[in-house]
Amino acid sequence: VTIAVDAMGGDYAPRAVVRGAVKASVEFDEPVLLVGDRPAIEAELGKMKRFDQSRVSIKHSTRVVGMNESPSHALRHLADTSIEAAWGEVRAGRAQAVVSCGHSGATMAFGLRAVGRLPGVDRPALAAIWPTASGPVVMADVGANMDCSGEQLFQFGVMSHVFARLALGIENPQVGLINIGREENKGNEPLRRAYRLLSESGLPFVGNIEGKDIFSGLAQVAICDGFVGNVLLKFAEGWEMSRRRLLSSLARRDKDKKSWRGYLMMKPVLRRHHQVFDYAEYGGAPLLGLGGLGLVCHGSSTAKAVKNAVGLATVSLRQRLVEHLREGLRPLRHLMSGPKRVSRPVEAV
Amino acid sequence: VTIAVDAMGGDYAPRAVVRGAVKASVEFDEPVLLVGDRPAIEAELGKMKRFDQSRVSIKHSTRVVGMNESPSHALRHLADTSIEAAWGEVRAGRAQAVVSCGHSGATMAFGLRAVGRLPGVDRPALAAIWPTASGPVVMADVGANMDCSGEQLFQFGVMSHVFARLALGIENPQVGLINIGREENKGNEPLRRAYRLLSESGLPFVGNIEGKDIFSGLAQVAICDGFVGNVLLKFAEGWEMSRRRLLSSLARRDKDKKSWRGYLMMKPVLRRHHQVFDYAEYGGAPLLGLGGLGLVCHGSSTAKAVKNAVGLATVSLRQRLVEHLREGLRPLRHLMSGPKRVSRPVEAV
Repeated sequence: VTIAVDAMGGDYAPRAVVRGAVKASVEFDEPVLLVGDRPAIEAELGKMKRFDQSRVSIKHSTRVVGMNESPSHALRHLADTSIEAAWGEVRAGRAQAVVSCGHSGATMAFGLRAVGRLPGVDRPALAAIWPTASGPVVMADVGANMDCSGEQLFQFGVMSHVFARLALGIENPQVGLINIGREENKGNEPLRRAYRLLSESGLPFVGNIEGKDIFSGLAQVAICDGFVGNVLLKFAEGWEMSRRRLLSSLARRDKDKKSWRGYLMMKPVLRRHHQVFDYAEYGGAPLLGLGGLGLVCHGSSTAKAVKNAVGLATVSLRQRLVEHLREGLRPLRHLMSGPKRVSRPVEAV
Repeated sequence: VTIAVDAMGGDYAPRAVVRGAVKASVEFDEPVLLVGDRPAIEAELGKMKRFDQSRVSIKHSTRVVGMNESPSHALRHLADTSIEAAWGEVRAGRAQAVVSCGHSGATMAFGLRAVGRLPGVDRPALAAIWPTASGPVVMADVGANMDCSGEQLFQFGVMSHVFARLALGIENPQVGLINIGREENKGNEPLRRAYRLLSESGLPFVGNIEGKDIFSGLAQVAICDGFVGNVLLKFAEGWEMSRRRLLSSLARRDKDKKSWRGYLMMKPVLRRHHQVFDYAEYGGAPLLGLGGLGLVCHGSSTAKAVKNAVGLATVSLRQRLVEHLREGLRPLRHLMSGPKRVSRPVEAV
């Protein structure tokens, strides 16, 4: 399988992206296709130590989707961007997945145009992998859809469950619906509708979960609408950064240096502690519900994050994720009758 | 001023509540009125060291609102609960504020019945004080209202701004609207409406903020609907607990004990670090928009948290918070014309 990597997307592109992709081609022993400005990509490749050049190829494209551009504008007016070209390779069968650290809304939009969506899916979701002390939790949606219907939340649950099982190897992932209390009747109409659908679906559904349950091991799949998920994700990012800074500055301020020595002594443990909550361990967030495989990465992804995202794409392809999503959705489509209310797409991340 | 404290509410009631309230009566030099089962309260008071008994009185009541009871049920069918009796004292002018670690929905409901709401307020909000490295951030709503209208979000902003200024002493608190991006047009219709109202209000409005901005010092007031706020609050609680456990267990597992020694050496710094993010430093969350002052505390509040909540109530009364809320809302009521869509009350916390 070949992974098409958008070499131009992200704060540290093309350097971090090219390095991460090349490392992934070595570690996972699969070819990568770097998509973007050929001279820039070649310049980065030239700086790297020896690697198997037969595993790395380039697809030239001339433009990049800026982070402030709207996906709909990009779709209509920007031709030959690296994101579009990457999806073009998937459509043509020369690659099997797209990984981008660039514009996630545009990655979704061009993906929809290139490979469509799976039957039974109103809108694909962006699912994040949340590292916790008791293992990863898949959270969807985290920014592709807001004001979701009960049907949509249900679809996120079905798809995230398949992803957690196949791509993350969680044996029997439990699905929880994020709400403001555990009781069945909590929340608004879409939440209560999603609750009923999940109950009837045969999925291992633990019911409503609260924000704190993401860390309690109660569920390995946490469902919410894209507004809530996006705010949570960014909140966690901000808190994490603020905490790290505060801890080292408090330790440094200690007059007799004892705390500072203690801080240095437990540095390895602090590092492992941070690692447990480090998104870069997974690297990419899958777009679930597209007719093909797409992963988006944080804009500030390092080479390591890119490498891990390509690794996640590789595993997902080997496990035939998209085919299993299609099959997982099929028997549940009869549950989703009634009037449709499809969320507005948002352009959050 | 006298603070009526619901002595029967909370996981550690009446013990922690009585102890906290008595300590507050000493530290803030104001009388407290303990409301609840007289024999139980007297038994706790009997165990305490000497204190000024003229500062502590008891109002007997026979019942307690259970945490699983709905506020509407409590309103209709439960007579003479400690929450109702506490608000009764406020209504009768024998107390000026209610503090409860019990059922927050019932504290709101009985408060509405006893003292009503301020003109221009559709529904009172529950506002949490979020401790951050750059000082406290007032977040509203955190669980009293979901699916809020733009007008309601705006009201939360107006009231939280007054609270941040008077009760927390923040000089010129900046107001931010929690959204999935900084751009003006982000979010759904209520968010865009709230954005316009806040822009026109003359408040120091910094615009949309993201989840991570709660820690960036960009705003000291963060506005969201009660669903988002409640999930965030509980998420943070769960993460905090999970992190503390993980850090000590990682340090303990270190074979050559170096990390563990370092951990012990920096214990004071870790404590200060936790303290920065410790809700108990403020103790209570105000119900903003009632015709009187009410604060609700976390169910697992310690005596220290109760003491600080009574302290916050004392400061709020001295600063004439409710009167200033009334005055702060008055000139803005002309902005809130048009059809009303009032959120459903929820019973989240």
